[in-house]
Amino acid sequence: MKRVHIAGVGKTAFGVLSGRGLRELAGEAMEAAIGAAGRDRREIEAVYVGNFDAPSFTGQNHLGPLVAGAAGLEGVPATRFEAACASGGSALFHAVQAVRAGLYRNVLVCGVEKMTGQTTARVAEILAGAGDADSEARLGATFPAIFALIARRHMHQYGTTREQLAAVAVKNHWNASMNPQAHLRKVISIEQALAGKPVADPLTLYDCSPVSDGAAAVWVTSEPGEVEVVACAQASGALALADKREITTFEATRRAARRAYEEAGMEPGEIQLAEVHDCFTIAELIAMEDLGFIEAGESGAWVESGATGIDGSLPVNTSGGLKAKGHPIGATGVGQICDLVQQLRGQAGERQVARRDVGLTQNLGGSGATSVVTILRRTV
Amino acid sequence: MKRVHIAGVGKTAFGVLSGRGLRELAGEAMEAAIGAAGRDRREIEAVYVGNFDAPSFTGQNHLGPLVAGAAGLEGVPATRFEAACASGGSALFHAVQAVRAGLYRNVLVCGVEKMTGQTTARVAEILAGAGDADSEARLGATFPAIFALIARRHMHQYGTTREQLAAVAVKNHWNASMNPQAHLRKVISIEQALAGKPVADPLTLYDCSPVSDGAAAVWVTSEPGEVEVVACAQASGALALADKREITTFEATRRAARRAYEEAGMEPGEIQLAEVHDCFTIAELIAMEDLGFIEAGESGAWVESGATGIDGSLPVNTSGGLKAKGHPIGATGVGQICDLVQQLRGQAGERQVARRDVGLTQNLGGSGATSVVTILRRTV
Repeated sequence: MKRVHIAGVGKTAFGVLSGRGLRELAGEAMEAAIGAAGRDRREIEAVYVGNFDAPSFTGQNHLGPLVAGAAGLEGVPATRFEAACASGGSALFHAVQAVRAGLYRNVLVCGVEKMTGQTTARVAEILAGAGDADSEARLGATFPAIFALIARRHMHQYGTTREQLAAVAVKNHWNASMNPQAHLRKVISIEQALAGKPVADPLTLYDCSPVSDGAAAVWVTSEPGEVEVVACAQASGALALADKREITTFEATRRAARRAYEEAGMEPGEIQLAEVHDCFTIAELIAMEDLGFIEAGESGAWVESGATGIDGSLPVNTSGGLKAKGHPIGATGVGQICDLVQQLRGQAGERQVARRDVGLTQNLGGSGATSVVTILRRTV
Repeated sequence: MKRVHIAGVGKTAFGVLSGRGLRELAGEAMEAAIGAAGRDRREIEAVYVGNFDAPSFTGQNHLGPLVAGAAGLEGVPATRFEAACASGGSALFHAVQAVRAGLYRNVLVCGVEKMTGQTTARVAEILAGAGDADSEARLGATFPAIFALIARRHMHQYGTTREQLAAVAVKNHWNASMNPQAHLRKVISIEQALAGKPVADPLTLYDCSPVSDGAAAVWVTSEPGEVEVVACAQASGALALADKREITTFEATRRAARRAYEEAGMEPGEIQLAEVHDCFTIAELIAMEDLGFIEAGESGAWVESGATGIDGSLPVNTSGGLKAKGHPIGATGVGQICDLVQQLRGQAGERQVARRDVGLTQNLGGSGATSVVTILRRTV
């Protein structure tokens, strides 16, 4: 098995990018990644595209050749990978596997989603396709409702509080305020977060990630580089909430994390920095537990203590996370890699943390039916 | 690189399967494949799903975990691959690559699509997403219109006739009449085909594949078996018709074929049997040329001569092809493998050809922006 490195990363700003289509967004992110790699694009042998549902959002399907064409890479195998909100992570997982196995030396991964310009109801309907259409979506269980059930259960089971959920939002908004590419750059207080417009009790608007447009790209290579992919694992779990044994933990994340730690030969305690999938604030708390950073039920108090803040012992979502950086679905998992690479290379500007050598990303699909966990290490 | 074999195949009938959803169809095909393999499903390490647009057809996205769950395979990495009408072929391509590289020993590939129960206009709109939404779909260039342009150009350039197009339909309907799992089992005459209801001049209803439901599954393995995958290649080309240098040939098919022949160490003349992507009759003619079976412009006369008939020198689409067997998009590329394996193993019943050892499948996406070419060889 070959060692896998990242040759370059690039992304667009995340947000409401009116008048800019899939081709243009993907093109911008890929040009940035190719530019950062400083290598000839003709070395790229395949294009792996992460996208959740461009057909429903824009009418455009068949994104493989479209995205490859946008980077002047017509001809190479170009495929779209869909795994709900983990589509970007899944594209990356398969690209890393392919390079590790020696199938390709260079693969360009591009995640993209164009979500704005729809009614909120239509967006909720499209997103509901990531759950079980028969037993959830048709009965009105949209994702805010599903994660509200999960949050309520976590509160009941462990005494997690509304204030602890709000603490995630406050932290991630604070971080995003220093990220020029973030969707929501407004600093908020605990009081503001708690007083947010109710979405699905106990979640308010401030517990939910926004609807964003954006793209991100990562050049994965077998050549040596400054950042190594030491592990990347994908796992699945039950699609419907009703089919899970427990709803306060995601088996898919636990499985993917177990494999990733094994692949890297690491323990959770060795992770120094993380970008995790906070589509809702409760999801960040559960991620802390599922990734083994903290015992089940203790994430709320841990986040409240400041441990995951930008100056904490384990900074989490220094980019602002999905919550405030934005969540253009297919781009999210690829964007997490971009953000982590920036921090590891000391290029995160105002939000740069003290030198860290090992970081992790976690990208979740649906209510935890897919999860991708990646571990990166700085090599120099 | 490891040798890759097929442990078992299975499919549902293709057709209007009212009241049967994605989960049930995929489940039936996978159970059949697992049963045919006669092995323990717990050996399966990943599920690769080919699906074009379940979200638009049914509201259900995130098919990886849904399909894995339907086969009792919760936990394994489970991902949906989308490459328009080549989605099934693309899932297979990536699975074969993964097994060849030693990433997995056993992968289950399942293609599925549930298309019926929509208005014809809505189906045309969803399918149009496989082309360029901006320059084609929004201007009304649906797929029958696009392939009509291609057919007209082929007629102009090479003198191909309406009768030659009809000969493809007559042959494939004849073959499907002997396939109990085919959608359209009606034998038709040249006169009937020519007198079909016009769809997009010069194409009549008999030049177009039907709208079908169905699923197909293939267990890909590194264990020895009766049928070996000696080559599998995917390539891309321009998405929009207007961006192609020539519209009577698909660069993606030529590229994929070149790589596949190279991988197999074979020449086109060594192929003894083929299942090709006849979404429209003209597509079968072009496939003959792009795959190197016959010179450009000579496919019409060749088909008319009976060479590709079930008793011809190179039987093509003995299953009935997309044209008459049906075209449940995501299932198509996987179903072609099932059909070819059946013939190679001498299990094709009434439509069984004399013993053949080497066969090829070709699965096309959009107006040729993706193409997957696979070569199978009987080993015993």
